[in-house]
Amino acid sequence: MPDISQLSINLATVRQQWGLIEALEGVARAGIPAVAPWRDQIAAVGLKAGVRRFRDLGLKCSGLCRGGMFPAASPEGRKAAIEDSLRALEEAVAFDAACLVLVVGGLPDGSRDLADARSQVEDGIAALLEPARAAGMPLAIEPLHPMYAADRACVNTMRQALDICDRLGPGVGVACDVYHVWWDPDLQSQIARAGRDRLHAFHICDWLRDTKDLLLDRGMMGDGVIDIPLIRGWVEGQGFTGYHEVEIFSAQNWWKRDPDEVLATCVERHRTAC
Amino acid sequence: MPDISQLSINLATVRQQWGLIEALEGVARAGIPAVAPWRDQIAAVGLKAGVRRFRDLGLKCSGLCRGGMFPAASPEGRKAAIEDSLRALEEAVAFDAACLVLVVGGLPDGSRDLADARSQVEDGIAALLEPARAAGMPLAIEPLHPMYAADRACVNTMRQALDICDRLGPGVGVACDVYHVWWDPDLQSQIARAGRDRLHAFHICDWLRDTKDLLLDRGMMGDGVIDIPLIRGWVEGQGFTGYHEVEIFSAQNWWKRDPDEVLATCVERHRTAC
Repeated sequence: MPDISQLSINLATVRQQWGLIEALEGVARAGIPAVAPWRDQIAAVGLKAGVRRFRDLGLKCSGLCRGGMFPAASPEGRKAAIEDSLRALEEAVAFDAACLVLVVGGLPDGSRDLADARSQVEDGIAALLEPARAAGMPLAIEPLHPMYAADRACVNTMRQALDICDRLGPGVGVACDVYHVWWDPDLQSQIARAGRDRLHAFHICDWLRDTKDLLLDRGMMGDGVIDIPLIRGWVEGQGFTGYHEVEIFSAQNWWKRDPDEVLATCVERHRTAC
Repeated sequence: MPDISQLSINLATVRQQWGLIEALEGVARAGIPAVAPWRDQIAAVGLKAGVRRFRDLGLKCSGLCRGGMFPAASPEGRKAAIEDSLRALEEAVAFDAACLVLVVGGLPDGSRDLADARSQVEDGIAALLEPARAAGMPLAIEPLHPMYAADRACVNTMRQALDICDRLGPGVGVACDVYHVWWDPDLQSQIARAGRDRLHAFHICDWLRDTKDLLLDRGMMGDGVIDIPLIRGWVEGQGFTGYHEVEIFSAQNWWKRDPDEVLATCVERHRTAC
C-alpha cells in the first residue's frame, strides 16, 4: 500500500484555486512531502521567492513543469523554444527537481508533417542535453496521449520516447504518466525496457470512462478505469523509488472544489486506489 | 490524384439527415459508386428492402458497420455479442461487402482489466472466424484511437491488431482509418506488415487541431492535420485497390448541413486533399 511519504502533488491539480506560495503551504499543511511546480506560477512570484518558501517548508520536487514545445514553423521559433527550455533547466536546478519534464510539442501551425515535427523534437532535446548533463539534471520525455499529437506532443508512446533516448544516450529518460499510457499494449515491456535509470517520474490520475473534454477532464485516482496499482507495480518492479505525482486537470470538478479538500482526497485515494 | 470511382461514403457521414434508402439514393445521385451502411439503419428499413435498393442503384459496399463489441461482464453477455456479430456477418454477405468491420469493444462496465478485455476480444473474433471463412467474408479489425480504449475498442494500434491476426490466421485483417492511426510512429511499418492481403478497408476524414469532442468532431478531409495522401500512398503501395471510404461523425458541423452539399464536398475534397 502506498504511503504518504511517496506522494507528490503536481500543482496544476489546484492551480485554479491557489498560486505557488499558497499551494506550497497547502501541500505542506496536508503532510505531503513533495510537489511539481509549473513555470508560469513560479514566474508570478519570482524564482527566488518561490524557492525560498519551498525550502523553508522542507518540500521536495518530483519534477519541474516544463521544458519542450520544440517544433516551430521558423528557425527563430525553434531557437526560442530551446532558449526557453534552458531557462526551465535553471529553474529545475534551483528547485533541486528530480527531473525536468519535457512536453515536446506538436505540429507547427499549418503543418501536417509529423515526421519533421518529430525530427525537430529530437534536435531540440539534443540541444538541451549537454547543459542538462553538466547540471546533473535528468531530462524526462513525457509521452502524451495520442489525442495530443497535433497540438501538444508528437511523442506519444513509451516506445517512441525510448527510441529517442537510445539515440541520444545518457541524461534523458521518460516520465510515465498513467493517463497518457494506460491503453498501450506495449506498456509493461516498455517500462521494463526503460529500466530504473531512465524512469525519472511517475504521474497518476485516472481516465474517466465518460471523459467530457480532451484536456481538462482528468479523474481522481479510483474514479476511472486505470489499474494504477498494476502500472505502479511495473514501474517499481524496475527499482523506481521516486514519488507518485498526482496531476489532475479538471475544470468542472476538482478545480472548483476547496483545495484543502482536493489534497485530502489525493492523500486518501493515493492510499486506497493506487 | 484520387478518382471518384475510388470513393465510398460511410453512411454515418449523413446519418443525422438521411435514413438508409435516402442515403443510398443520395450517394448514387452524386455519382459515388460505393457505401458502407450501418446495421441500425439497415434494421430500420429491413435487410431485404435495403439490399434491393442498394442493388437497383448499382452500388458497391466497401464494408459493413459493424460486428464486435465482444467484452462483457458475464458469459451470457459475451455469447450475445458473438451471436450479434454472426447476424452482422449475414448482413455483410447480403450486401456483398468488401469486409465486415469489427469495432471490438472496450472494458466491461466496472472493469479495469484491460488484458482480460483484450483476451475476450480475441476469443470473440476466433468464434466468428470459421463462419466468416465459410462465407468468404473478410473480417477487418479496426484499431480505434487510444482515446476510445475504455468504452469502444481496446485494440488501439495496427501493431496490436496485426498481432491478433498473426495468431488467428487467414480470414482476418485490418481496417485502416486515418483518424485512428495517423499519430502512430509505427504506422508505415505496420501497414507494410499488414500487406495487401490483410488491408481490407481504408477510411478517411481529418483530425481537427482544435477537436471539441472525443466522438463527434471529426473533420472533412483537408480541414485538419492528417497527411492523407502520405498514408494513402503507404496503403496503396502495398497493392490495396479498395475504396477510399469517407467516415465523418460531426454533430456540430457536417451533420447540420444539407446532405447533398456534404456529399459534394466529400467528392471535391477526395480529389483535392486525399
